[in-house]
Amino acid sequence: MLVYFLLNISVAYSTMIAFVNNQFIEESKATLGISDLSIQRGYGVFDFFRTSNFTPLFLDDYLDRFFTSAATLRLQPMHSKKELKKIIGEMIRQNNIADASFRLILTGGYSDDSYQPASPNFIIIQQAVQLPGNEKFIKGIKIILHEYMRDLPTAKSINYLMGVYLQEKVKQKEADDVLYHKDGCVLEFPRSNVFVVTKDGKVVTPAENVLKGITRKKVLELARQKYTVEERAVTIDELKNAAEVFLTSTTKRIIPVLSIDNTEIGDGKPGEITAFLLEAFLKMEANLIAATAEKYAL
Amino acid sequence: MLVYFLLNISVAYSTMIAFVNNQFIEESKATLGISDLSIQRGYGVFDFFRTSNFTPLFLDDYLDRFFTSAATLRLQPMHSKKELKKIIGEMIRQNNIADASFRLILTGGYSDDSYQPASPNFIIIQQAVQLPGNEKFIKGIKIILHEYMRDLPTAKSINYLMGVYLQEKVKQKEADDVLYHKDGCVLEFPRSNVFVVTKDGKVVTPAENVLKGITRKKVLELARQKYTVEERAVTIDELKNAAEVFLTSTTKRIIPVLSIDNTEIGDGKPGEITAFLLEAFLKMEANLIAATAEKYAL
Repeated sequence: MLVYFLLNISVAYSTMIAFVNNQFIEESKATLGISDLSIQRGYGVFDFFRTSNFTPLFLDDYLDRFFTSAATLRLQPMHSKKELKKIIGEMIRQNNIADASFRLILTGGYSDDSYQPASPNFIIIQQAVQLPGNEKFIKGIKIILHEYMRDLPTAKSINYLMGVYLQEKVKQKEADDVLYHKDGCVLEFPRSNVFVVTKDGKVVTPAENVLKGITRKKVLELARQKYTVEERAVTIDELKNAAEVFLTSTTKRIIPVLSIDNTEIGDGKPGEITAFLLEAFLKMEANLIAATAEKYAL
Repeated sequence: MLVYFLLNISVAYSTMIAFVNNQFIEESKATLGISDLSIQRGYGVFDFFRTSNFTPLFLDDYLDRFFTSAATLRLQPMHSKKELKKIIGEMIRQNNIADASFRLILTGGYSDDSYQPASPNFIIIQQAVQLPGNEKFIKGIKIILHEYMRDLPTAKSINYLMGVYLQEKVKQKEADDVLYHKDGCVLEFPRSNVFVVTKDGKVVTPAENVLKGITRKKVLELARQKYTVEERAVTIDELKNAAEVFLTSTTKRIIPVLSIDNTEIGDGKPGEITAFLLEAFLKMEANLIAATAEKYAL
């Protein structure tokens, strides 16, 4: 049973409503006990989607991935997909933010021995987001490489030790992000997927040992309508010699990668295929919002 | 300034006192806000020592390692070593448990963007511990191997995704623990170090890409008094063909490894050098308690 009594208080004070276990609660008051296995051992999974004009985009895909990640870490979600949609709908209405991110976290729970998972704790946090505009697309990003593969890479665990740690190196190198690679092959960014456009116009992205992003999935669908698409291993050499390189992520959509370890990619400007895919993605998003906005209307 | 007012309440209700940031607090009431980077991204460090007869063992070594781990993750502890000792002394007196473990956790703090570390949160939790007796030493343990190296292995981060995850595999294989290896070389257990005694009586332990355990350090000191000691790479082959194998840990001291992937080690019984080192370690511990117990007397 969901507890709604806090909602009116929160609206009165204009604080954001979060959801913890079975209760809506003001985010600033939401806590977990210190024996939770996320605090003790960094053990938990999460997922992250966004709304545009009050419409959750590709929600089924994100929730399916959330359940898959939870199963990999053997954590049992306490709500069904249907219940989650109801809770999320309620947060969209109550927090009243058109463009927002939603973060679902399922932790290892209150562990007696600080090691064995217990009944999970579950959190939903909503935050306003602003997506990059055209100027960020044109500017593109500069990246560095780092040899690393995420643990249990196909699950979206909360383990970002390496990603958080590497922020300092990214900053020192005056880069915008870091791309992981292993055994000579490119994998993923800490929070985004990578795509390569070959000189003969194929759209390629690593197939294994990466988190399968939802934006990645949609971009693959769109690319297949016009280009030859390959999901396979991509070497560092192929990456650096690509015609175009871009990243995909929930909060960035598609951003061109214009420099890798100070090697310029293509002619140092966003590529044609990258631009086409962003346009197609924006159309897909607009169509989805037009088709489903009334479901979440206030 | 430390806040002591909760102590009397807690003693009255016989609950354990924890320490969070700058306050002593009943452990059952101690929480962190959900934006903490441990919950969001598994980002934090910890350390773990124990008391025997109210005496913290090798406390300086553990606190030094805690500060080193924090520095690696660029987290600034909010208390000096001297202040920590005062807080720990107070917990020993108030919780009044002779043999206990202490867990210090320093997290990435309340992050605005769920990624960038902020001012850390700091936790100390105390729990009663019972160390393995002679019967556990005689029985020894059975282990399996798993290819893995911890991220930032020389720091004691809270990232135990792999260790917690592998508990199921350990159980399925009817083993007691799992030993990590990489590139053909043995590294460490999720929570213990490994030692090998060669057939010509050398005491050997991996030198690199492992957490330098405090029990490991003390056992190396003791071993040096009588045996040839080597800190160097140890291959899986050398491990499986060793005369003796044992683990060292804060809560287990020294435990013989008698079976690895169903290969019996030595004659399948605890080895002579392993037994000698445990005896020497117990003596060291007793001497330390005798020398320092009065410092923590109630």
